[in-house]
Amino acid sequence: MSAPSEVPKVNKAVSNGYGPPAEPFPLPDNADILTQNAIKYMSFAGDPRTRFIFQNLTRHLHQFVKETDITTEEWMTAIQFLTATGQKCTSLRQEFILLSDVFGVSALVDAINNPNVGSATESSVLGPFFTEDANDVPFGESIASEGKGEYMLVQGRILNTAGEPIPDATIETWETDDLGFYDTQYTDRQGPDCRGRLKSDAEGRYQYRAVVPVSYPIPGDGPVGTLLELVHRHNNRPSHLHMMVEKKGYHKLVTALYPEGDPYLTSDTVYGVKKSLVVKLTKIESDEEARKHGFKKGPFTLLTHDYVLLTDDEAREARKKVTEANLLKEAEFQKLIS
Amino acid sequence: MSAPSEVPKVNKAVSNGYGPPAEPFPLPDNADILTQNAIKYMSFAGDPRTRFIFQNLTRHLHQFVKETDITTEEWMTAIQFLTATGQKCTSLRQEFILLSDVFGVSALVDAINNPNVGSATESSVLGPFFTEDANDVPFGESIASEGKGEYMLVQGRILNTAGEPIPDATIETWETDDLGFYDTQYTDRQGPDCRGRLKSDAEGRYQYRAVVPVSYPIPGDGPVGTLLELVHRHNNRPSHLHMMVEKKGYHKLVTALYPEGDPYLTSDTVYGVKKSLVVKLTKIESDEEARKHGFKKGPFTLLTHDYVLLTDDEAREARKKVTEANLLKEAEFQKLIS
Repeated sequence: MSAPSEVPKVNKAVSNGYGPPAEPFPLPDNADILTQNAIKYMSFAGDPRTRFIFQNLTRHLHQFVKETDITTEEWMTAIQFLTATGQKCTSLRQEFILLSDVFGVSALVDAINNPNVGSATESSVLGPFFTEDANDVPFGESIASEGKGEYMLVQGRILNTAGEPIPDATIETWETDDLGFYDTQYTDRQGPDCRGRLKSDAEGRYQYRAVVPVSYPIPGDGPVGTLLELVHRHNNRPSHLHMMVEKKGYHKLVTALYPEGDPYLTSDTVYGVKKSLVVKLTKIESDEEARKHGFKKGPFTLLTHDYVLLTDDEAREARKKVTEANLLKEAEFQKLIS
Repeated sequence: MSAPSEVPKVNKAVSNGYGPPAEPFPLPDNADILTQNAIKYMSFAGDPRTRFIFQNLTRHLHQFVKETDITTEEWMTAIQFLTATGQKCTSLRQEFILLSDVFGVSALVDAINNPNVGSATESSVLGPFFTEDANDVPFGESIASEGKGEYMLVQGRILNTAGEPIPDATIETWETDDLGFYDTQYTDRQGPDCRGRLKSDAEGRYQYRAVVPVSYPIPGDGPVGTLLELVHRHNNRPSHLHMMVEKKGYHKLVTALYPEGDPYLTSDTVYGVKKSLVVKLTKIESDEEARKHGFKKGPFTLLTHDYVLLTDDEAREARKKVTEANLLKEAEFQKLIS
């Protein structure tokens, strides 16, 4: 037996204890057997959902590689890109969500999971700028400190699909200042600004003061920025105001409103805009009106919008229909992979 | 104008200078329009290859999300997994290559880019353990220091497809010791061991002493290890000896030989084994034979194998045929995305 000082210093290789498959696989002598094996190799998971997700993913990955006839160099570039994307992430920045955003995948996941029904307010992407530390803002008060941009009054009601008011709903709202920055993008951030937490009143009404948001580029100094330049795409989002509305018994609504007329409205780089979320802003010049609502003076911009929430049951029902329409049936999938 | 001290400290948001598309896109009011837009949005790249790769990737990503009806929580788990995979990478460890390996994508990229032709030696995955610092090892000498495992004599010839010897080819070879570790996995690594750089002689012959390699688990303490456990897959590679052969005018051969009988031969977790790369080892007991080849004493294991290289032209021709068979034609792709 070796003395402790002679024990080799190794980075422990961990054998996970699973054995080889009961039936040996054919050796992957060509690309087709290889793909078959790779899909079959994802079939041991006990959980059928896990198995299906990984088998389907493997199939699409292999199809992508074959259909594009990817070269060794291109694949290595992809590996390096993905590595750099992970390494750009910090507690304050999530570059992989950004990547998912610019491929339209975040918006797609949102569309699938929060389907629209009738009069209900449509959802939009959450984005990376929500924080938990917004201040409680009383009815009619301001979420923005003075000097953060043009005055805007935001008001409306929280309703259910029968048109009845929902009192005491919690509203989280956040937006850029007039430089196109969220508070979290300032390195000297002292606390929350241009964001707030409100409650709807007994009649379902909400009202607060804010600033007119402006369009802005998503972070362009990381791998995702490089990717967009490579494919000659702009990296801007149209101006918008984020809203998140919650109330027990109702499906949580994550959405945003997009003022009409923005040059990036029809080419939002993260695909967040829907027709029903485009809103008209009204300019009100009167100093008197402005002061009545708590501004120092006019003019101010008025944004009036009602939000309609689905009950949990309504949302579940709508989600079920999407699943029935989208989810690849086991029999069809087996045909595809055989 | 503000004094410098009043200038807000912001993380610069970089607008990349591209404008909105000439023709506005329809707003992505449902998942189908969204997918159409996301694919169309990748069409501005000047380079047709870049355009095609990103459009095809977008299509497969969206199909995967729809066919699996992925939930918001599942997608967030994927984002966190990819982030952790990037962050596990260091200058000594590449977890994204490992991820590509266990999905069979590395082996597929290898199969596509290094197709087999006739008598030529087939390729196998490079793996993460090649280093540039191997020592030059004279004909017949050892790549392994004493005590690293059971003696093995490796010999054979480097040939072209006409069966003629290729003299002065450069051979890089590397392997595990009998604990299943490469030298780079030892934290107290002093220099290269169980690896060497050789030359074929005037008759194309090579010969060196080594140790019998053993099967081993790929690193299991990162996200990829977690993934394999999730899908109940073992994480082992069958024992193998890596070989990389280069000679001007010939296509670089990256391959490995897999001794028969290994329990993981038909379920290599990175899909590297091909039938033609499985080899028979011969045990030779004679002390005299052992000493003749430079070992202290018998027994030793004999591995005799000839490697057949393609010329650059032969490899190019074979690669072209794969491209013709795999690459999705522009017209077909347009049909798929329309």
